[in-house]
Amino acid sequence: MESIEELAGRLREFAAERDWEQFHTPKNLAMALSGEVGELVAELQWLTPEQSVRVMDDPEAGARVRAELGDVFAYLTRLADVLGVDLLEAAADKMAEGALRYDAETYRGSARKAPPLRHTGTS
Amino acid sequence: MESIEELAGRLREFAAERDWEQFHTPKNLAMALSGEVGELVAELQWLTPEQSVRVMDDPEAGARVRAELGDVFAYLTRLADVLGVDLLEAAADKMAEGALRYDAETYRGSARKAPPLRHTGTS
Amino acid sequence: MESIEELAGRLREFAAERDWEQFHTPKNLAMALSGEVGELVAELQWLTPEQSVRVMDDPEAGARVRAELGDVFAYLTRLADVLGVDLLEAAADKMAEGALRYDAETYRGSARKAPPLRHTGTS
Amino acid sequence: MESIEELAGRLREFAAERDWEQFHTPKNLAMALSGEVGELVAELQWLTPEQSVRVMDDPEAGARVRAELGDVFAYLTRLADVLGVDLLEAAADKMAEGALRYDAETYRGSARKAPPLRHTGTS
Repeated sequence: MESIEELAGRLREFAAERDWEQFHTPKNLAMALSGEVGELVAELQWLTPEQSVRVMDDPEAGARVRAELGDVFAYLTRLADVLGVDLLEAAADKMAEGALRYDAETYRGSARKAPPLRHTGTS
Repeated sequence: MESIEELAGRLREFAAERDWEQFHTPKNLAMALSGEVGELVAELQWLTPEQSVRVMDDPEAGARVRAELGDVFAYLTRLADVLGVDLLEAAADKMAEGALRYDAETYRGSARKAPPLRHTGTS
Repeated sequence: MESIEELAGRLREFAAERDWEQFHTPKNLAMALSGEVGELVAELQWLTPEQSVRVMDDPEAGARVRAELGDVFAYLTRLADVLGVDLLEAAADKMAEGALRYDAETYRGSARKAPPLRHTGTS
Repeated sequence: MESIEELAGRLREFAAERDWEQFHTPKNLAMALSGEVGELVAELQWLTPEQSVRVMDDPEAGARVRAELGDVFAYLTRLADVLGVDLLEAAADKMAEGALRYDAETYRGSARKAPPLRHTGTS
């Protein structure tokens, strides 16, 4: 697989061959995405942050995490395709916003200075 | 932005410049991804499936949905990068599995024949 | 089971008997809750809103939905217990806020007047 | 607030006064629940497990976590009410299953022996 466009195209065919477009509304796909992310989170829930860093060293857990990432990405790509959103552009725009909001000088090395609701750590 | 690799590289720099790698464990990033997907779902929760199909026609709602997709994709890319997983390959492998599991003949046009736990509709 | 307090007490014992308190940090429990909600959402993702209203009429789907609700509530109760939060009081406080924010006169029968980000429907 | 039944009754009235029953399908409410859990998870995402244990000591973060728990519980109660599910019974049934599946002797103090997909920790 070479690109997001190729993946989107293959997912489009996959749905068309099964006449599943009727189920692939943005609402339903957002729910499916949410369910897959839940499965990914479940793989990491009892691990310490340190254990989570090494999760790919465990062949079985690593394979499960990789498979869940694949599911999440497939549903995200399908949802964006159905909505006509370019994921790379949308992410780039958000990064540009983030760069303005969290300038490197102020936020370096410290989560304490971050805005209360997000990117924050009490310590 | 040309590719997932380019996005991953820019997110890596973004984190490094702020010394945020310490916060970017797979466990924490999976939580952040989950939070962003929650925001995306919230945009669509009160819409009917039909309304959700037209959500991009509303400039304000459309811009919010696009921004949430950008956030979700950015965290997913960062998480996969930290874990060393190739998202396109992982999704391709899952699609190959799905093609075997849901053959087009059996599952065409009907959610009723699908396995009980997933991809199913009672009707 | 008579009350949330009783459920919380039984979950406390359950964890203590297995020496699982070490895993039951708020962070881990919030992830577990998120995973269970993902499973609940997955049960409803391909249903139309109308089908979802009748989901309990299907004995198998109904049993799965009920089981997921039980899991979600168990983790929510355990998380609140570990944090020392009274769920009924916390919900009552939020309802009081909601009553001020969404007065019945203004918001009656129409999702259009609701604030753009939440409790909203485009129609 | 004395009981879940009382909360459910008040939420029922709240929805009726605003003619919001039309939006409160199980599908929509599950999405709303998922969105609220996402907000709860976001409060804890950058905290270490140890910091998350002390999150209620921080008045601002503590208030936000309590408010999110209230939102999650309100939507869960409303969803269960709409579906006709008794949350305490559903949780009790799941606990009885869990007690059989995870006997205290085998699973004591160790996440390693747990089934691979759930309640597990690699170490």
